[in-house]
Amino acid sequence: MKGNVIVGQSGGPTAAINSSLAGVYRTAKDRGAKKVYGMLHGIQGLLEEKYIDLSEHITNELDAELLKRTPAAYLGSCRYKLPEIHEDREVYEKIFAILEKLEIEAFIYIGGNDSMDTIKKLSDYAIVTGFKTRFIGCPKTIDNDLALTDHTPGYGSAAKYIGTSIKEIIRDSFCLEYSKGLVTIVEIMGRNAGWLTGAAALAKGEDCAGPDMIYLPELTFDLDNFMERIKDLLAKKTSVVVAVSEGIHLADGRYVCELGTSVDFVDAFGHKQLTGTAAYLANYVAHEIGCKTRAIELSTLQRSASHCASRVDILEAYQVGGAAVKAADEGDNGKMVVLKRLSDDPYQCSTEVKDVHKIANDEKLVPREWVNEEGTYVTDEFVTYVKPLIQGDVSPVMVDGIPRHLYKPH
Amino acid sequence: MKGNVIVGQSGGPTAAINSSLAGVYRTAKDRGAKKVYGMLHGIQGLLEEKYIDLSEHITNELDAELLKRTPAAYLGSCRYKLPEIHEDREVYEKIFAILEKLEIEAFIYIGGNDSMDTIKKLSDYAIVTGFKTRFIGCPKTIDNDLALTDHTPGYGSAAKYIGTSIKEIIRDSFCLEYSKGLVTIVEIMGRNAGWLTGAAALAKGEDCAGPDMIYLPELTFDLDNFMERIKDLLAKKTSVVVAVSEGIHLADGRYVCELGTSVDFVDAFGHKQLTGTAAYLANYVAHEIGCKTRAIELSTLQRSASHCASRVDILEAYQVGGAAVKAADEGDNGKMVVLKRLSDDPYQCSTEVKDVHKIANDEKLVPREWVNEEGTYVTDEFVTYVKPLIQGDVSPVMVDGIPRHLYKPH
Repeated sequence: MKGNVIVGQSGGPTAAINSSLAGVYRTAKDRGAKKVYGMLHGIQGLLEEKYIDLSEHITNELDAELLKRTPAAYLGSCRYKLPEIHEDREVYEKIFAILEKLEIEAFIYIGGNDSMDTIKKLSDYAIVTGFKTRFIGCPKTIDNDLALTDHTPGYGSAAKYIGTSIKEIIRDSFCLEYSKGLVTIVEIMGRNAGWLTGAAALAKGEDCAGPDMIYLPELTFDLDNFMERIKDLLAKKTSVVVAVSEGIHLADGRYVCELGTSVDFVDAFGHKQLTGTAAYLANYVAHEIGCKTRAIELSTLQRSASHCASRVDILEAYQVGGAAVKAADEGDNGKMVVLKRLSDDPYQCSTEVKDVHKIANDEKLVPREWVNEEGTYVTDEFVTYVKPLIQGDVSPVMVDGIPRHLYKPH
Repeated sequence: MKGNVIVGQSGGPTAAINSSLAGVYRTAKDRGAKKVYGMLHGIQGLLEEKYIDLSEHITNELDAELLKRTPAAYLGSCRYKLPEIHEDREVYEKIFAILEKLEIEAFIYIGGNDSMDTIKKLSDYAIVTGFKTRFIGCPKTIDNDLALTDHTPGYGSAAKYIGTSIKEIIRDSFCLEYSKGLVTIVEIMGRNAGWLTGAAALAKGEDCAGPDMIYLPELTFDLDNFMERIKDLLAKKTSVVVAVSEGIHLADGRYVCELGTSVDFVDAFGHKQLTGTAAYLANYVAHEIGCKTRAIELSTLQRSASHCASRVDILEAYQVGGAAVKAADEGDNGKMVVLKRLSDDPYQCSTEVKDVHKIANDEKLVPREWVNEEGTYVTDEFVTYVKPLIQGDVSPVMVDGIPRHLYKPH
């Protein structure tokens, strides 16, 4: 490379997004980039000319290793949706003026669906205006809902955390016995896609029966049928553990969490803000059956628990970061790096690039055939798919009993 | 030892309680116990003659290592309060008939305040009736509220999990910027004692500013003062993270969680069931300030996260289990094993035994001088006290990407 590179992070945090940042930095440096800039809070920060020179922060190999182990977006993130070019050309002119000033050859954006929309629009604009900067997307989302890639960095670590935590919750739930039994509802992220919720099945093994039921948001949720199943389970065992997606909804389209309290908040992309699915169901079960219930939300812990990261995930995140820089350096533009699985066992996976126009704003859902007929559990195919992605650990660098992260001055 | 040993687990689960069970088993076997029985669900199960022969479950050294790494009570637990002897002598006669039949020389009960009450009553009864079984308590509680012991096994691992998770939550909270800021309220267990909530301060270090405020249940909570401080913090920074105990309450005695919804449920020991403190405060802040808020309950994960256990804690739990058997074998009765700290740095700790009458039903709270004057943070003395207890890790035995536990047939 002859020019400079700029990299940004966008969308929700993950345990692996900083490993991609480390991969971008390392490969850019190896390929001769003079400067590697980091946008602070993505494209939104760039518009305010907020960026840093990454060499001042990643000063040695230990810093790079710490960065790989640091959860959440090191550079800060944003949920900024670029206007259409015909709606507000000024925004584009401003961005490209900054890129020109910084002599940016490659613009790498690490993010999910909404972030790939940014790459799409910027690369379109560059092609139309003859601008030389190349725009490459680097996949990232715990939701695993990006199209055309076998899976998405960030998902494996979240899945490992979910499997581990659900297993510990199940153990805990069998300790104390309650006269009418105990029902634990665990709420897992994933508005429309059930990849994370399905990972609850990873708790199942020779030493654990796994959760009793798993409800994904892809299928309609039937409250009466759910209650019947809970009653049947309580007739057979003292503790019932159910994993539900935050996005489960009734046949009429209402989210389960909306049944309890009114939800008015809508985020910048027009998505409804969801909370309280587990709380609603736990209260409902307690009221109907009179048994003890617990509602557990895995909350932001599931996306930021780098102390429980998957080695496969962290390494692949690093790899796609490097592949994004390589693609830009070799002349690609308006592409996203994807992971292509070659085999399950032994697990082998390589990278490719795909046209970002075919990825942006699309959502990959769990296939219907990977959920059982009753809609209450994922199939073995699902588990075979996810298992390679949670293998191996990345030992945290422990300092004084607590994992160390790469420090960033605010 | 010439006779047999029986061991039970009681009260809430922890990540270390099974390590004490492993210590009891190993030491009993080493000292010549013929049989080591495990009560299923503590004294409540024993009354129904539910127990197992532990040699059938801990068959080799690997089983013992897995047991140390298995969260929650392997034998099952209970919250059964023995009646006073004069109230219901029959219960005692039944228990002692079972102990006689099983030729029990030592009765070890692993638990907290309420469980030590069981040891007290049973040893009193044995002394009065001339029964030869010796009763020894083995301390266990994540709450760390047992009297006369420097600290309690189970606390260190919970504290390590809390410090680690709060640090990850803080990192996550700085990713996305909101126009009016983000306030995250993290709710931590501990009804009356703030030892767990104070452990949130462990997140603070060279690479993390730590939570902004920490509210323990020992002090009165002032909602107006809290709101003023939140406003001041939001004027200076984009993300504010506050750790609160589930047991914080107003000057008039009402729990904060009671302000939002009515709480009628009372457990077997007459304790009120608490939930929703973080949810109430997050809603209140959102309503008053209009900023984005998040409520996170660490829930049962904080007591069962053996994947993040402290090595010091797991080893000490094992040690007190062994010390309990040794005490019984050497003739002690009606005692509890306690940990005595000899020095902070290097950390040194030994075991002793103390009269259980001085421990049962008592609660050790965080001293007032270990909280700052404003009541909004713990002091350095608190951190110096807890830090040695979270040192070192116990690598989980990972099988197929998930920690392995010792299997127990139900």
